[in-house]
Amino acid sequence: MTPLTVIPIAGVPEIEPGAPLSALLLAGIQRARLLLQESDVLVVTQKVVSKAEGRIVDLASVRPGEEARRLAGLTQFDPRHVEVILCESIRVVRAAPRVLVTETRQGFICANAGVDRSNVGGVDRLVLLPEDPDASAAQLRAGIEKEAGVAPGVIISDSFGRPWREGQVNVAIGAAGVACLRDYRGQADPDGYELQGSVLAVGDELAAAAELVMGKLLRVPAALVRGADLRGQGDARVLLRDPAADLFR
Amino acid sequence: MTPLTVIPIAGVPEIEPGAPLSALLLAGIQRARLLLQESDVLVVTQKVVSKAEGRIVDLASVRPGEEARRLAGLTQFDPRHVEVILCESIRVVRAAPRVLVTETRQGFICANAGVDRSNVGGVDRLVLLPEDPDASAAQLRAGIEKEAGVAPGVIISDSFGRPWREGQVNVAIGAAGVACLRDYRGQADPDGYELQGSVLAVGDELAAAAELVMGKLLRVPAALVRGADLRGQGDARVLLRDPAADLFR
Repeated sequence: MTPLTVIPIAGVPEIEPGAPLSALLLAGIQRARLLLQESDVLVVTQKVVSKAEGRIVDLASVRPGEEARRLAGLTQFDPRHVEVILCESIRVVRAAPRVLVTETRQGFICANAGVDRSNVGGVDRLVLLPEDPDASAAQLRAGIEKEAGVAPGVIISDSFGRPWREGQVNVAIGAAGVACLRDYRGQADPDGYELQGSVLAVGDELAAAAELVMGKLLRVPAALVRGADLRGQGDARVLLRDPAADLFR
Repeated sequence: MTPLTVIPIAGVPEIEPGAPLSALLLAGIQRARLLLQESDVLVVTQKVVSKAEGRIVDLASVRPGEEARRLAGLTQFDPRHVEVILCESIRVVRAAPRVLVTETRQGFICANAGVDRSNVGGVDRLVLLPEDPDASAAQLRAGIEKEAGVAPGVIISDSFGRPWREGQVNVAIGAAGVACLRDYRGQADPDGYELQGSVLAVGDELAAAAELVMGKLLRVPAALVRGADLRGQGDARVLLRDPAADLFR
């Protein structure tokens, strides 16, 4: 096993809808004096992808419906914010004061359907998750390949909370060219004992590693992970558990 | 932000009860030609810590009780394995075919109470979690400081499954000298908007990053993470959500 290096990609300007994200990220990679490799994985935070895709809602334009107003009373959130969260969701998983966990249209179970009010160009705008983060990752990867002649793995990441444990962790919500699950089942350990049920969510672990160099406040929208060759056909959808097999719904 | 480097610490021999773990890990660090720094974080897999602490049970010595036999029927696990899992647990969270999720005495909610049957010197032995992983981390850190004159952060890690998402991820079950939570609440983002509820579980993210260079089958029991200066007083207990505040119990 070789060392892993996680390099912050900084200096990317504020992203507006329609911004050429692959070119802006490649410029950041060049500034970091890095020569992109096929075995690299570029982890990009969801927020810049969503902004480039125009997944922004002006809060003033939202008319909250009855269910949003009811849940806003319970959660103490802005009813317009709740309305947008509900539009992005297929069901409410938990609602309590300051907590609204839903299942999103993309299949994620997370707080506020990933609809974020912070770090936006103005305080009165909401940023939604990409409609299809795997497609966003594939598109970003194709753009990078077109411009740089190299197709690294691409992961789109967001920070999710989780049951039982405090704090959020960065996870992979979209991916292209990365095998997000590493399956050890059926392989023998050094003592000849067969490992059971060991499937590692390496896509999420790559996203987590990247968060350590991003820093919420430093405008580091991406990180390049070098040394973990996880090339594969996978997308991040493989990280979503089949609802029928999930004991915690 | 500077790059993060995650370096595998390999070549550590099979660990027996009473083994001088800090010395063996320091030898591995020397072989990797690394000069230990106070700002480093050494992530050590739970299995070697448990083995050094003698947290091993001979399966043949276990007499399963009635509840263990009942749950073994449901889960299709060895009743003796279930007996040991129950001894390590304060309650069963979910039981189903091939699934036994419990809350451990240490406060973790995980599969099989972390009691592992693989990678042991013989196939008929079980390795339990350390009784107090934060204490184990503190002890390991003190041992390293005594021998090397440097006290890096220490994290003891294990791979846990999680609801809703496929695959296991490495998390921090014990820590010493590492601030496992990074709290951004109350700080302004670049647009002056106050971030809400952004607390990152960086202890878990460090453990996840380390897993990427460990590899289940390669006998790499530790990794050194350099470049994420997260020195602090914290232990890993801060990562356990207060049951009263947990909506998913």
